Amino acid sequence: MFRKSVQVFLSPVLYNPQQGENAIVVVIDILRATTCMCVAFDHGVECIVPVETVEECLAFREKGYLVAAERNGEKIPGFDMGNSPFSFMDTAIQGKKIAMTTTNGTQAIHVARHASEIVIGAFVNMSVVRDYLIEQNKPVVLLCAGWKNGVNLEDTIFAGALVEELAPYFEPKDDAATMARTLYLAADRNKRNYLQCSSHFDRLLKMNLQEDVKYCLHRDRHPVLPTYVNGELRNVVSIPAQPRAILAC
Amino acid sequence: MFRKSVQVFLSPVLYNPQQGENAIVVVIDILRATTCMCVAFDHGVECIVPVETVEECLAFREKGYLVAAERNGEKIPGFDMGNSPFSFMDTAIQGKKIAMTTTNGTQAIHVARHASEIVIGAFVNMSVVRDYLIEQNKPVVLLCAGWKNGVNLEDTIFAGALVEELAPYFEPKDDAATMARTLYLAADRNKRNYLQCSSHFDRLLKMNLQEDVKYCLHRDRHPVLPTYVNGELRNVVSIPAQPRAILAC
Repeated sequence: MFRKSVQVFLSPVLYNPQQGENAIVVVIDILRATTCMCVAFDHGVECIVPVETVEECLAFREKGYLVAAERNGEKIPGFDMGNSPFSFMDTAIQGKKIAMTTTNGTQAIHVARHASEIVIGAFVNMSVVRDYLIEQNKPVVLLCAGWKNGVNLEDTIFAGALVEELAPYFEPKDDAATMARTLYLAADRNKRNYLQCSSHFDRLLKMNLQEDVKYCLHRDRHPVLPTYVNGELRNVVSIPAQPRAILAC
Repeated sequence: MFRKSVQVFLSPVLYNPQQGENAIVVVIDILRATTCMCVAFDHGVECIVPVETVEECLAFREKGYLVAAERNGEKIPGFDMGNSPFSFMDTAIQGKKIAMTTTNGTQAIHVARHASEIVIGAFVNMSVVRDYLIEQNKPVVLLCAGWKNGVNLEDTIFAGALVEELAPYFEPKDDAATMARTLYLAADRNKRNYLQCSSHFDRLLKMNLQEDVKYCLHRDRHPVLPTYVNGELRNVVSIPAQPRAILAC
């Protein structure tokens, strides 16, 4: 059988929109935007509108949305939430609409907005994403949000983990996919120590966000599949949670 | 002693010019531009002017320059050389000036042109580059030329090899430096197989350029230090060659 391709962009500035035209693009921002999105949908949020600027985000409050804004790891004062997964676990968010802006994750969605299909990937919904990609059998693009137009370790390692698990069905199309896979396999031997080399990991630890970091590295806690259609994310899959081994920490 | 930083940009589109302002930027295009530059200087070339376009390059012929142009791995008809290291080994190039344009390498130099200092790095001059950086003790930026605004394995692995050898003196500043170092260490266990995953490696092999590829992975064959000043490269170091172990193949 002809295998479809899997391609990796390690940062939004590396993204080539042409490659997204016929592919499913998985947007990845492990610490913490795409993790938060999965948590929110698993707690019954109706939709999430990712926006680029803090001002745009705040304007959604008048339309009855909850508003979530983060910059440089910190919640912006005056908003309902920042970018901590724990702030999306409140039962009060059930059925609500959320507008969200973050340093990297929502920007990555914006960069990929013309892709044929965009889904949200994180360790907390990894198996759902993997199974969906295998089932759809279309070319796959893994887009890492990185950090401020650079690359980062945790998104790359997640991309590599997906490349590895998709290997029987999808062929790595570029050097970035090979690099991500190798890094994942190297990290897998000593995850805790390795991810502590991540600059963002370190940044969040300095902000006393250890629990956030730990949570974001759990696998399959939230079996949802947030999908971006017409400017908003909605969950298209809901499977009973079957928490598996912790990836790191 | 306070250690200086070493930072890696995996592609010119990721490069942040601010980081080059007080740093020595090492431009890396293993297959094959920066390798060719080292070969040329070790064969007595007076200077190399890296230019962006084929038209600019050709215009230098009227000024008495030899002209070298490559796109997508192939020499452009009508030029004196393409981008094969063997085409720069002719004794006839001694004392000559060369204008050069390549798919990735010369573009990377252009991107970094406002840096405080730019030197050319390749496996063939690796120890000279490493020793120079240690001696200068300034912040270091390793800029990979990549492939058409993407990343590539061979430049990343070279950057990782430098990060590894600089580790006692320079601290990795970003996730890209950590990633490059990990990839180098992973590749070091099985270089031949690993670099065969490189898309550009594969591209050159399909063009029957096996010998070029093999040559570019030799270490320390050309102990020169091409340095970019006022729009041209000149060699500032010349040490008798002491060929060491082959890196791969």
